Amino acid sequence: MHAKTEKAQIRVTRSSSAYWRVMFDNPPLNVMGPQFVREMREIIAAVEADEEVKVLVFESAVDGFFLNHSDFYADMKDLTSMPQGPTGLEAWPDILVRLTRAPVVSIALIRGRATGNGSEIALACDMSFASREKTLLSQWEVGVGLVAGGGPMARLPRQMGRQRALEVLLSSNDIGGDLAEAYGYVNRSLPDGELDGFVDALAKRIASFDKWAIANTKRLVSAASLPQDVEIAAGWDACMASIARPAAQGKIKALFELGFHKPGDAEDRLGFYVGQLGQAG
Amino acid sequence: MHAKTEKAQIRVTRSSSAYWRVMFDNPPLNVMGPQFVREMREIIAAVEADEEVKVLVFESAVDGFFLNHSDFYADMKDLTSMPQGPTGLEAWPDILVRLTRAPVVSIALIRGRATGNGSEIALACDMSFASREKTLLSQWEVGVGLVAGGGPMARLPRQMGRQRALEVLLSSNDIGGDLAEAYGYVNRSLPDGELDGFVDALAKRIASFDKWAIANTKRLVSAASLPQDVEIAAGWDACMASIARPAAQGKIKALFELGFHKPGDAEDRLGFYVGQLGQAG
Amino acid sequence: MHAKTEKAQIRVTRSSSAYWRVMFDNPPLNVMGPQFVREMREIIAAVEADEEVKVLVFESAVDGFFLNHSDFYADMKDLTSMPQGPTGLEAWPDILVRLTRAPVVSIALIRGRATGNGSEIALACDMSFASREKTLLSQWEVGVGLVAGGGPMARLPRQMGRQRALEVLLSSNDIGGDLAEAYGYVNRSLPDGELDGFVDALAKRIASFDKWAIANTKRLVSAASLPQDVEIAAGWDACMASIARPAAQGKIKALFELGFHKPGDAEDRLGFYVGQLGQAG
Repeated sequence: MHAKTEKAQIRVTRSSSAYWRVMFDNPPLNVMGPQFVREMREIIAAVEADEEVKVLVFESAVDGFFLNHSDFYADMKDLTSMPQGPTGLEAWPDILVRLTRAPVVSIALIRGRATGNGSEIALACDMSFASREKTLLSQWEVGVGLVAGGGPMARLPRQMGRQRALEVLLSSNDIGGDLAEAYGYVNRSLPDGELDGFVDALAKRIASFDKWAIANTKRLVSAASLPQDVEIAAGWDACMASIARPAAQGKIKALFELGFHKPGDAEDRLGFYVGQLGQAG
Repeated sequence: MHAKTEKAQIRVTRSSSAYWRVMFDNPPLNVMGPQFVREMREIIAAVEADEEVKVLVFESAVDGFFLNHSDFYADMKDLTSMPQGPTGLEAWPDILVRLTRAPVVSIALIRGRATGNGSEIALACDMSFASREKTLLSQWEVGVGLVAGGGPMARLPRQMGRQRALEVLLSSNDIGGDLAEAYGYVNRSLPDGELDGFVDALAKRIASFDKWAIANTKRLVSAASLPQDVEIAAGWDACMASIARPAAQGKIKALFELGFHKPGDAEDRLGFYVGQLGQAG
Repeated sequence: MHAKTEKAQIRVTRSSSAYWRVMFDNPPLNVMGPQFVREMREIIAAVEADEEVKVLVFESAVDGFFLNHSDFYADMKDLTSMPQGPTGLEAWPDILVRLTRAPVVSIALIRGRATGNGSEIALACDMSFASREKTLLSQWEVGVGLVAGGGPMARLPRQMGRQRALEVLLSSNDIGGDLAEAYGYVNRSLPDGELDGFVDALAKRIASFDKWAIANTKRLVSAASLPQDVEIAAGWDACMASIARPAAQGKIKALFELGFHKPGDAEDRLGFYVGQLGQAG
């Protein structure tokens, strides 16, 4: 399921033939680089090819981080050189779009920081449940001069309305479990001690249902709720354009100087720190 | 207003020429069969033809059940042989779509179980208010291998967002008054003792307003919020296809063995029971 | 920024080149007449032409009224004779649509009554935060036989779903801070003593971000969430048609007899009073 010469960053466990658990495991910060994207692409292909799987649960093996921003030490070319996927989109948005259309139910079990990519995959899942105490969701991109690349401009307003979506994106702030639930950023936030049991019971319940009925019901909900691919593509293109701009380069450099990309306060309170960069950042 | 040789399953009371109350009355479980559909069709036609009616309130005369799943003892042919309605849709979705477009305000007063058809008519109403303590809303279909036929795949995601809509449909679970309100499944849940007075006061208030202003305001909201009929038709077709499949036949047979369609625990806790059918159901 | 021979009804203060505060100041009731529209039009043009502004905060200088219904003492011709704006829409909807598309962030800081125009501008802003204790939002139009003209039929259902939008519009009732937050009518309601500080901190935070990233992120959210202009135009046309009808003329005359348009109970509890007009109003 993963490249042979590297330690896997994603682990897939089959609770049953119908119920797979997908665990993000790239300590210490669960940042997302090209290897993660390659592994996810293989997992999506395996899901699409499997006739028995009905439920995927995405979760994290890394304390404090569900899935985090991109790996800024990675070579961008390793990502941008990947071939476009079957949707015609670039690798990461292709994975997310295929997840939204797959004839299985995907559930995000969110504990810890879900920033950038982590928020994007949660929004591409069919449902999401968060630890009330231990969740921080955010789209931090505007705070460092970037535009998000994995579809939140298309998905957030459809899920929570225009005004709350604009607040999430333009404030670039960290959003805890209570507010995430109030805004409909997630289905529900649950007390941390109840979250795993709740999601496992729900996953097993749905895994006992008929795959054809699941797939056709989801297909019709998708017709009513998914953005067209061209919107996702436009977001990706704006993201790529933003990375090259001096504003973003300066902001990210300033953030590195504050401790970005290392375990510690800057990663733990990223929303606060992007508010400290100032105009000159 | 109803077929002459049968006891009516729906009773219409005119509080005034502008304010009609429509009461579902098919004890003991308020299941919906062909007779109910025929009566509803006549009521919708009467509403469309009346120049004075401004407000409809839908409620139940049956303790514990607002409006329930279909009558599985009825002959499906009595339903499917009904002519298509003026929208070109089959009888039940035609009624629901006409209700969403009628130049009057429809309000669901929900007390008791609103499963399948009951949820669908509530979603086709212009507003819905639920008893906080005594409401159970559900789309139970996927739990027995079916696809819902009255439009919830089209309506739920537009009302509560994709992720919560998918949870309602794919979990097939019972949803009480508090969660229904939090998800926006209903406008509001009220303490049971306050519900009737609240809805009656709101209905009388709107009935004192100008019909032209009501109708034109609703028309413009509909332009912004109603699905196209083709989405409703696609849902109905998927429902019809699902009924014939062995998966659904087996699940429903197993559910009958647990007490389905009889007053008692299986009907009272239907969400729990569809989770007990298992793969082999 | 405003007509030379009249006291300005709107005051613009630049906290910085990037952060402007726009204050509605037409005591005692903050009603909206032609002069207000002309001043707003100039402000929008100034925002569009400025290369540095990133954040607008709209607030009120008038105790108890954020922005109120139209001025019924004004000559309608002073409004309808204004030329159509760059969008091809009439003056007021043109201003609102341009606000939704401007490459800056607009935030409504709501304290007091936001009825009709006040609700419409709040909905056209990118975010809105309300005083929990001191806010009354409403679209009162249907209650006096009118159709709203500034877009709420298009915007409300996209923001809060069809059923809650229909309740707001067809009940024509006053909605306080708690319900406004629960329905997603505003982003959040805050304790009155915290509101100003919260909005100021958020505005300063966003004003420190990069304008290109703000503008492009908003542009993509708009693609996912804004109605087409034709929907806004249809609402305006229905509003104009409604004003001329005897039903509206009679209701408004009856409301004047109850104290409308004067400081006092009828303006303070407008939602209650429109419910007292009756059929003959």
